Amino acid sequence: MNLNRPVSLNMNVRGMGQSATLAIKQMCRALRQEGRHVYDFGLGQSPFPVPHQVVEALRLAASQKDYLPVEGLPELREAIASFHRTKDQLDIDPHNVLVGPGSKELMFLVQLVYYGEIVLRSPCWVSYMPQSRILGRRISLTHTRYEEGWKITAEQLLRALEIASDNSRPRLIVFNYPSNPTGHTYTADELKELAEVARRFEAIVLSDEIYGQLHHKGEHISIARFYPERTIVSSGLSKWCGAGGWRLGTFAFPKDLEWLKESIAAVASETYTSVCTPVQYAAVCAFRGGSEIEHYLCHVRRLLAALARRCVESLNGVGVRVHLPAGAFYLFLDFTPLADRLARRGIDSGQSMCDALLAEAGVAILPGVAFSRSRSELTARLSYVDFDGDTALAASESIPLDQPLPEEIISARCVNVLDGVKRIAQWVS
Amino acid sequence: MNLNRPVSLNMNVRGMGQSATLAIKQMCRALRQEGRHVYDFGLGQSPFPVPHQVVEALRLAASQKDYLPVEGLPELREAIASFHRTKDQLDIDPHNVLVGPGSKELMFLVQLVYYGEIVLRSPCWVSYMPQSRILGRRISLTHTRYEEGWKITAEQLLRALEIASDNSRPRLIVFNYPSNPTGHTYTADELKELAEVARRFEAIVLSDEIYGQLHHKGEHISIARFYPERTIVSSGLSKWCGAGGWRLGTFAFPKDLEWLKESIAAVASETYTSVCTPVQYAAVCAFRGGSEIEHYLCHVRRLLAALARRCVESLNGVGVRVHLPAGAFYLFLDFTPLADRLARRGIDSGQSMCDALLAEAGVAILPGVAFSRSRSELTARLSYVDFDGDTALAASESIPLDQPLPEEIISARCVNVLDGVKRIAQWVS
Repeated sequence: MNLNRPVSLNMNVRGMGQSATLAIKQMCRALRQEGRHVYDFGLGQSPFPVPHQVVEALRLAASQKDYLPVEGLPELREAIASFHRTKDQLDIDPHNVLVGPGSKELMFLVQLVYYGEIVLRSPCWVSYMPQSRILGRRISLTHTRYEEGWKITAEQLLRALEIASDNSRPRLIVFNYPSNPTGHTYTADELKELAEVARRFEAIVLSDEIYGQLHHKGEHISIARFYPERTIVSSGLSKWCGAGGWRLGTFAFPKDLEWLKESIAAVASETYTSVCTPVQYAAVCAFRGGSEIEHYLCHVRRLLAALARRCVESLNGVGVRVHLPAGAFYLFLDFTPLADRLARRGIDSGQSMCDALLAEAGVAILPGVAFSRSRSELTARLSYVDFDGDTALAASESIPLDQPLPEEIISARCVNVLDGVKRIAQWVS
Repeated sequence: MNLNRPVSLNMNVRGMGQSATLAIKQMCRALRQEGRHVYDFGLGQSPFPVPHQVVEALRLAASQKDYLPVEGLPELREAIASFHRTKDQLDIDPHNVLVGPGSKELMFLVQLVYYGEIVLRSPCWVSYMPQSRILGRRISLTHTRYEEGWKITAEQLLRALEIASDNSRPRLIVFNYPSNPTGHTYTADELKELAEVARRFEAIVLSDEIYGQLHHKGEHISIARFYPERTIVSSGLSKWCGAGGWRLGTFAFPKDLEWLKESIAAVASETYTSVCTPVQYAAVCAFRGGSEIEHYLCHVRRLLAALARRCVESLNGVGVRVHLPAGAFYLFLDFTPLADRLARRGIDSGQSMCDALLAEAGVAILPGVAFSRSRSELTARLSYVDFDGDTALAASESIPLDQPLPEEIISARCVNVLDGVKRIAQWVS
């Protein structure tokens, strides 16, 4: 160890490595270059292609080169407002929509400009906590349990907010559902109760609904319906539209939070300036949607739901605890029932479990600690996306949507996912 | 004034508006929508098209959708390193290149992760100071003078760094040349002297050379040649490649500053994630360059130099002080010799001067205060880019590069710029 390395770094970032999901992607790439077969269940990237009309829209916009307004292309902001109107029954003024280079960047900026406590539940998405840490923000973290389906209950939220001496503290509560990493969602009643608690404390809600369109039954409900006056709804192209690498995220603000939107736009104008112009033109096509995109979404949902069922059955069969997800493409695995067996193999933490799985079975999953669980907990996130979305989609399209997807299609098109899950099952047995 | 607006904002951003350059663009747009003719010399956007082979490369990459590594596409990082090798005679390891969504974002992140004082000269680019303010960084600002061509001298830099009680303070010195807003550059001897001062204090240099390829004679010299061990060179597609709206900037680090690069990449992985994938593929084509792109650059330079000459002559003729720029597409106007005349019209600050110019003559320029000059100073930046770059380029291409550009081409193709400058001249007379 060289203690004399002459660095001068902000203490909030010192020692910080790259985001766990990106780091595991690079590790898988390196192992593959060594010729090893890797089941890559680490990164949460949609396996499906960007709908062809959206790709075509990007081609058509390729020569667009002007800087666009910080908040986004006006037509795009209108399309996004109308998307939320149609999909979520929300009344969003296009003027209150903000487009950013990924919703992750917008989440960072909201934490930068807002002065208040950030209220999170764990397991939570990998980047919320590091973002707060970079900015030196105060965090309130509530741990949820397998038994409650990893959901935060209204009672738990109340306990997190009630501080006798300072109930009026400014707070930003982050929700994320369908959830990364657990795939859970909330019922309308649960959302109403959570909204009621938030309202009592006049907290701001940031609802990360980027997987909303990947609810496996197409039945996503936004919490903004029950708390419209102070909820920011976050979405983007990365998940339902398969365009993670394009980097376009969206925030829809209520009228009452215009001051927050304006402040984020001011900082954006001094940092990323505006989102890539050709991508914004293409995104208009994506957010306007239409029957072809709806069709695409229905096939994507049917495939994800069917594949999840197969994985969950297989894992439950060997004693790994995991819920059937309601949306997105993640399973949150809990190996606690197998703790004794794993302890005999020297495994005493989520990280050592994932390291052994990768080394011994070639399966890459991310330990719970990356999602703000404790180090010792034997949990991990599995992204069941290691298959060719193009051919899977084509196979699904041969079966009418009103029929169930034949098991053979999953068996034939998602071999790597099923094999990888089998390897986990063998590895624990 | 409503003092009761219930906002909770970080004090570093409270009251901050959008970047001056973006704000004026939106103001011009609004005036035009009212049917007024506006000479838009506010925003610094290249008027030239993106070279057609680069646009074609974007079209070909439109279906690329994967997240790329935080640091950038490996082929692109190689192309950037090789660009600096060829253009600047710098020995950059591709591994030490970082690609970001605009160099502005990378500049923000370097200030976020680095713990030290930021050393600036004024007039300086609009965003350096607001970025430091957002992050609560300590700034050292040195005002330069018209008489020195707005350059900072080695002696001035020495005075800025010499603090008897704390000479070893960690510092990041920002250079920017060809300069926005003044168009000046430095000679090799001046750069050697400045580098020598920086070396004495072991300061880090951030050299913003985004206009390097727009040196009007194609003779840009990087300060990194004289201080390779601690200079970061910043560039991007926005200016020389005309692709401002695409949002791609680059940082090239020396080996000794790998720790800084790694820390920026770690924060990037928690914020913008990576740069738009199709744009990165297209950028490979731009940075690899070739004879067609060189040809394009030669025409762009010849046009900008010829147009600058015409504007400067016209303005000097009515007593406005302005130097002939060495590069980029800006003139920094100093109306001080006309102060008495302006005072009689009630003008006593750069802002009131620019407001009157826009209202009375329809010309939009940005006051010196946006570039960290004093409020009272009668200076302003004029971006001479309000013309159609496509047709100007086509006209220039009809004249061999070894011949001077006929004045008629400028007169015919840059009418709006010449007219706007004439209006300024009439307005002050």
